Amino acid sequence: MKIAIVNGPNLNLLGKREPAIYGSLTLDEILQKLKTDFPGVEFVHFQSNLEGELINKVQEFGFINAAQTTAMIINPGGFSHTSVALADALAASTIPVIEVHLSNIYAREEYRHTSITGAKCVGVISGFGYSSYWLAVNYIIKTVSAK
Amino acid sequence: MKIAIVNGPNLNLLGKREPAIYGSLTLDEILQKLKTDFPGVEFVHFQSNLEGELINKVQEFGFINAAQTTAMIINPGGFSHTSVALADALAASTIPVIEVHLSNIYAREEYRHTSITGAKCVGVISGFGYSSYWLAVNYIIKTVSAK
Amino acid sequence: MKIAIVNGPNLNLLGKREPAIYGSLTLDEILQKLKTDFPGVEFVHFQSNLEGELINKVQEFGFINAAQTTAMIINPGGFSHTSVALADALAASTIPVIEVHLSNIYAREEYRHTSITGAKCVGVISGFGYSSYWLAVNYIIKTVSAK
Amino acid sequence: MKIAIVNGPNLNLLGKREPAIYGSLTLDEILQKLKTDFPGVEFVHFQSNLEGELINKVQEFGFINAAQTTAMIINPGGFSHTSVALADALAASTIPVIEVHLSNIYAREEYRHTSITGAKCVGVISGFGYSSYWLAVNYIIKTVSAK
Amino acid sequence: MKIAIVNGPNLNLLGKREPAIYGSLTLDEILQKLKTDFPGVEFVHFQSNLEGELINKVQEFGFINAAQTTAMIINPGGFSHTSVALADALAASTIPVIEVHLSNIYAREEYRHTSITGAKCVGVISGFGYSSYWLAVNYIIKTVSAK
Amino acid sequence: MKIAIVNGPNLNLLGKREPAIYGSLTLDEILQKLKTDFPGVEFVHFQSNLEGELINKVQEFGFINAAQTTAMIINPGGFSHTSVALADALAASTIPVIEVHLSNIYAREEYRHTSITGAKCVGVISGFGYSSYWLAVNYIIKTVSAK
Amino acid sequence: MKIAIVNGPNLNLLGKREPAIYGSLTLDEILQKLKTDFPGVEFVHFQSNLEGELINKVQEFGFINAAQTTAMIINPGGFSHTSVALADALAASTIPVIEVHLSNIYAREEYRHTSITGAKCVGVISGFGYSSYWLAVNYIIKTVSAK
Amino acid sequence: MKIAIVNGPNLNLLGKREPAIYGSLTLDEILQKLKTDFPGVEFVHFQSNLEGELINKVQEFGFINAAQTTAMIINPGGFSHTSVALADALAASTIPVIEVHLSNIYAREEYRHTSITGAKCVGVISGFGYSSYWLAVNYIIKTVSAK
Amino acid sequence: MKIAIVNGPNLNLLGKREPAIYGSLTLDEILQKLKTDFPGVEFVHFQSNLEGELINKVQEFGFINAAQTTAMIINPGGFSHTSVALADALAASTIPVIEVHLSNIYAREEYRHTSITGAKCVGVISGFGYSSYWLAVNYIIKTVSAK
Amino acid sequence: MKIAIVNGPNLNLLGKREPAIYGSLTLDEILQKLKTDFPGVEFVHFQSNLEGELINKVQEFGFINAAQTTAMIINPGGFSHTSVALADALAASTIPVIEVHLSNIYAREEYRHTSITGAKCVGVISGFGYSSYWLAVNYIIKTVSAK
Amino acid sequence: MKIAIVNGPNLNLLGKREPAIYGSLTLDEILQKLKTDFPGVEFVHFQSNLEGELINKVQEFGFINAAQTTAMIINPGGFSHTSVALADALAASTIPVIEVHLSNIYAREEYRHTSITGAKCVGVISGFGYSSYWLAVNYIIKTVSAK
Amino acid sequence: MKIAIVNGPNLNLLGKREPAIYGSLTLDEILQKLKTDFPGVEFVHFQSNLEGELINKVQEFGFINAAQTTAMIINPGGFSHTSVALADALAASTIPVIEVHLSNIYAREEYRHTSITGAKCVGVISGFGYSSYWLAVNYIIKTVSAK
Repeated sequence: MKIAIVNGPNLNLLGKREPAIYGSLTLDEILQKLKTDFPGVEFVHFQSNLEGELINKVQEFGFINAAQTTAMIINPGGFSHTSVALADALAASTIPVIEVHLSNIYAREEYRHTSITGAKCVGVISGFGYSSYWLAVNYIIKTVSAK
Repeated sequence: MKIAIVNGPNLNLLGKREPAIYGSLTLDEILQKLKTDFPGVEFVHFQSNLEGELINKVQEFGFINAAQTTAMIINPGGFSHTSVALADALAASTIPVIEVHLSNIYAREEYRHTSITGAKCVGVISGFGYSSYWLAVNYIIKTVSAK
Repeated sequence: MKIAIVNGPNLNLLGKREPAIYGSLTLDEILQKLKTDFPGVEFVHFQSNLEGELINKVQEFGFINAAQTTAMIINPGGFSHTSVALADALAASTIPVIEVHLSNIYAREEYRHTSITGAKCVGVISGFGYSSYWLAVNYIIKTVSAK
Repeated sequence: MKIAIVNGPNLNLLGKREPAIYGSLTLDEILQKLKTDFPGVEFVHFQSNLEGELINKVQEFGFINAAQTTAMIINPGGFSHTSVALADALAASTIPVIEVHLSNIYAREEYRHTSITGAKCVGVISGFGYSSYWLAVNYIIKTVSAK
Repeated sequence: MKIAIVNGPNLNLLGKREPAIYGSLTLDEILQKLKTDFPGVEFVHFQSNLEGELINKVQEFGFINAAQTTAMIINPGGFSHTSVALADALAASTIPVIEVHLSNIYAREEYRHTSITGAKCVGVISGFGYSSYWLAVNYIIKTVSAK
Repeated sequence: MKIAIVNGPNLNLLGKREPAIYGSLTLDEILQKLKTDFPGVEFVHFQSNLEGELINKVQEFGFINAAQTTAMIINPGGFSHTSVALADALAASTIPVIEVHLSNIYAREEYRHTSITGAKCVGVISGFGYSSYWLAVNYIIKTVSAK
Repeated sequence: MKIAIVNGPNLNLLGKREPAIYGSLTLDEILQKLKTDFPGVEFVHFQSNLEGELINKVQEFGFINAAQTTAMIINPGGFSHTSVALADALAASTIPVIEVHLSNIYAREEYRHTSITGAKCVGVISGFGYSSYWLAVNYIIKTVSAK
Repeated sequence: MKIAIVNGPNLNLLGKREPAIYGSLTLDEILQKLKTDFPGVEFVHFQSNLEGELINKVQEFGFINAAQTTAMIINPGGFSHTSVALADALAASTIPVIEVHLSNIYAREEYRHTSITGAKCVGVISGFGYSSYWLAVNYIIKTVSAK
Repeated sequence: MKIAIVNGPNLNLLGKREPAIYGSLTLDEILQKLKTDFPGVEFVHFQSNLEGELINKVQEFGFINAAQTTAMIINPGGFSHTSVALADALAASTIPVIEVHLSNIYAREEYRHTSITGAKCVGVISGFGYSSYWLAVNYIIKTVSAK
Repeated sequence: MKIAIVNGPNLNLLGKREPAIYGSLTLDEILQKLKTDFPGVEFVHFQSNLEGELINKVQEFGFINAAQTTAMIINPGGFSHTSVALADALAASTIPVIEVHLSNIYAREEYRHTSITGAKCVGVISGFGYSSYWLAVNYIIKTVSAK
Repeated sequence: MKIAIVNGPNLNLLGKREPAIYGSLTLDEILQKLKTDFPGVEFVHFQSNLEGELINKVQEFGFINAAQTTAMIINPGGFSHTSVALADALAASTIPVIEVHLSNIYAREEYRHTSITGAKCVGVISGFGYSSYWLAVNYIIKTVSAK
Repeated sequence: MKIAIVNGPNLNLLGKREPAIYGSLTLDEILQKLKTDFPGVEFVHFQSNLEGELINKVQEFGFINAAQTTAMIINPGGFSHTSVALADALAASTIPVIEVHLSNIYAREEYRHTSITGAKCVGVISGFGYSSYWLAVNYIIKTVSAK
């Protein structure tokens, strides 16, 4: 089982930037924890602050090389609320995609309440910090096992 | 560990009503599966089509008898988008509450995209059918264990 | 032939409350007239000011015990314009439902122009006082006879 | 008793155009059915795709020659949602006017939910196909008999 | 001096329809009064309930035969608020056009506050009953004399 | 003199829930203080989290048994901003009703600025904690004395 | 016959400020022309850039000393679109008030299309430069003569 | 105890202007009644139709000379809905301010439902005529006594 | 191959009216150029300023006599943005319809950005002057040839 | 003659992604067909999922190296509706740019109806699949020949 | 060189009112600092809480006596967001005007984000406390020196 | 002292593109002038048309290598109005950032009036061409000197 983790803009600063909102774990620590918590899963990770690079990777993981990846977990950060182009890329994915957010987007500024990208995923998990990723992986494992 | 599950309007018809959207499991089957999947957890369940009865129960589980319950999982159904009063009750809760939805609310009618109640919870899990509940329970167990 | 009549909030005050808008017939008189005008039809009636009790009854008449009722006539009163939950219940109905209004909702305050619930019914009859119910019954009889 | 039936734009294509929405009866068949179903009523019919010709006829039936007609039934089609001018003509009518729609306008595109013209009629009947007209005639007969 | 008077939908019913709003003068009486009050002016009059016929006449008076008419006075009635096409025709006029309204459009329903057509005229006179026309003629005479 | 006090959703948690906003008095203490401050007044109290039960009581106090009560004081809580049905019930009241709020609704979230229910009362008193009730009672006594 | 002319903010700069929009006549020249054109009328004039001074004068001319003035002509300038307080003062006037604008407010920025103050006047004349005042005086004379 | 009463635009016309809305008491009579009803309180009164003079006085009573006044009661009239500047002045007050309205602002035109200024006061009392002031004074006395 | 060209309001004035926007070719010259550029195509042309006559012709070309025409090109002018009725007629067409605009509607007033009618066509070509028609014909020929 | 073709996000997946909407041709096949259909034209092609790379190329083709290219055809995909920056780049182009869309953007989700970028082009061709490009090339050839 | 400084409502309270937002300098200290920092510049200062007095002064400095002043710096305070009349006065200015704000208006309440008045100035400097004025003076000196 | 200058999309075309709006200086000339005007300051410059590269640099200058830079000046161009992701990056900056615009964004299209990014900076300077940068540097020097 191979799961792609795609992280959007500013998530490379995790742990240091606004920890009251996003928690004190760095992105590396999050990835390390995932590997520790799920030793049987192979994780590939990609982070970029460039919308188009995220689209490229979403296409690659979800469409072009879809056979090599079981599922994708994406945290599109600020692009969740503005990017029609990223949503179009997600709509083309042939593997399941789960959108996660560290903070509860409903409890923040109004312009963060909508998720254009989330509408093109299986579902959205929002508000649980590191555990948003952890829950998404659990869901993927469970779904795969059920087949 | 005791988890309260609170289900809102029309969820008593689950499995029979619009299964293409909500899945083919009945509410009883969902509860039974939770008990099977988490034998170490005591579940209390409440379903009502009455907004006020839901408020009563949210107050009871989350505030008045908060010491007796570890956490609450709520699926407010159609009230998610309209009920200021239910959101006020959730805001008073002193135990963690997780909002779940069977379907992905972002992929449905526009008036289902907002969640007034979700803003007052720890987080929101939306779009995974039965697994929305299953993930919420996993999160609670993980959080409790971490203490 | 058995027709369920479901009346929403404040309709128990009919005949006395704002008769210039709603007419001078009481709810009892309306029901009595229906029985007189349609002696061959069995009417069951339910009125409540509680949204959730209306949902319960709509589920019962339209879904749970659907085999026992030919059709339903509902006047959701003020809930027509605000209740996603009641609309969800109507969407689950497996017998035809007709929404009626005593007054012409288009000729009143703007917030009464929309009907969330009406979108989930066969059709809407609005503005004919007692005759809104009378027409709905006529339609049901005609449809049944045509089968 | 003489009833004027006024049909707006595109209703001349009934039965052939989008039958899934508007039914398979042609306009002629609808008129013929009305004559068959109500042999004691004289019907005059007018259909036009021109807003102004509809205004002319509404003025003629409802105001200028009002003494010669008992009541009017109008299906303004697409003009229901846009024509202030037709609504003004209806407001001048001195005989009762009933607005009908074949389809349930609440269950269609959002711009069909409002009815500027319906606000100037006695009431609106929407969603019953041919029976929308049939119900309107029944109402008129009932009202006249009650005098 | 020749002035074209163009009257839009429902103005043929003036004097009889809603006299509390529009006054008790008929359209013929208004035209007769204009002739009496301005014996030196030749008036041509056109009234129609058809938007397109009004466009035709506005084109004819204001563009095609513009050399034969000094100025135009238009009361577009309900089309003032909805007709982009009529506004386009007015924009093409090469003679001055003055929009008039019998009633004060600012003191009526909100959808009558805007005038798409008025934006393409020299100015708008609204609220003075017959005198709205009378003032417009006075303005035209004054402007012509000033040349 | 008999005054009905009707309190809406979540007011049963007063004194404990968000005391920074709502004050530290419990609902019982508020009622006790009213009795102490106005020994000559008989108070009947009703609190519910159910919109429909509030409608029932408003009908009972204000319409059905109106002769037995001098006036009503209502704090509709979160229903102030959403409930057309409760506003309709208040509009039917034949005794004066005063709407009160503990907090200043204008100084809170924007969705709390409107009061659909307040429009159907004599007036609204908002922002004075316990004293909002105390002022309402003073007003009623003053009005009765003035008769 | 005595007519009060009330001019609002920035009209003291007329003739010099943005002459392409407002014309090249100064305010003094406008007043002088009115006196020349209407020798039998006594004009009192007031201009202020202060909203409150305009309210004071509108009260004085239209209410407090109403017996001494036949009618009022007001050009509220930028306050037309924003001042509820000035509109309230105009609503209290017991003599007829006519609102005038030099430019055609419909042909300018969208925020100039509405006139809160115009709704409280007999009518509005907009777009005729000096002649907007000239027409208003004509109307007043005509109305007085007709009594 | 010294209470400042600040009244905004058009309140100098009270008792004569639109008495159906504002009551038949003049402003002088209201002040006289306050003095009679509260003989132990010293009242200072200020009324102006000028927004800036009201700001000046609010600054003077509430900030500059705050030590000399116990509390302020303000009826900002039409400025309640439009004046950010007056709201800013109220926000600077160091003594408690209570906003009052004679009429129930929720039961009037929609643009009167919001109160920008009320958000900066302790609370708002709306709809009780003279008694709105009377209640505000009662509240101030009660609060002072409680210290 | 026979192509119907349908032109809406004010297009009869082409070449003379606002040439900076619409170009200097008259409608006749446009049609002549089409005939010259496409000698193998039979063109039938219809222009009207009446919305209803356009609906009539769209029905005739696209539905009633659909067998006689290969395709339709429509320039609905100002009706593009307002006419639900014309859009309904286009939706009924059984031959392909292409909407064209001489000017680029996105680069003009905001109310010209939407096209209700364009949504019911194969596609929209906007901004190329005469060439908008020329391109539409090219597309039709190409499509037919491809069959 | 040299024409630059610029394709935006996700167009690299053409032919495989949502073929019901976008057709079954791949991007390579589209380019190959253009070369076959227009052998006398040199095409340069650029596709990117990165908004900024598209801006770079639009600047290069349309401004920096404008002398080397005859015209540009752009399909901005999802950026059409959101990118002010790309529209700014197009506004700087000194060669003609034509915007094309494979699908009819008016017949899809409402957020695809506006085109910020299209407003800065010569015109927009939308809805003709491969032929949208083919028509754009035809237009360029025709315009060049006409010089 | 002579620079006029115009300060709007509530700026007379600077240094004492909400220092967390507006800083701890008083208005006098700001002016004193400007004089100290720019000994070669003559400053004239005007502060008022009255919108109309600000208009008067803007007219005087910017238009009537424009020859005597080099440039104007205005901080319109709360009027920035509401005053069409003040914006009209600024539009008439023949000397350059620079709008300044002490706080960053984009980082405050949403109704402070727009500046009607700023649109009529050379530019806007917002968020630098005293330095907003200091920067504006620097700009004026630089511009004058450059001539 | 080291100041980072970050310029967004299309600013590489400065001096050539729309000089009436943006001035005739090229970006190189602006940087050269800054170096000439402030010889004691070290400037590092970055320009990109890629949103994500701007985010990268903002992170680098403002967060990752914050110790090496005194302050940042950013002109986000078209991203000011649309990029939540860039605003999030600015919010993470630990050195002061000043947003500048060459043109006065309030005097341009409405969609340029808001600045999502400006809300996360110290302040915004807009409308002074090259001097917007020059003022920003002055402010930084002044602030540093004051320490």
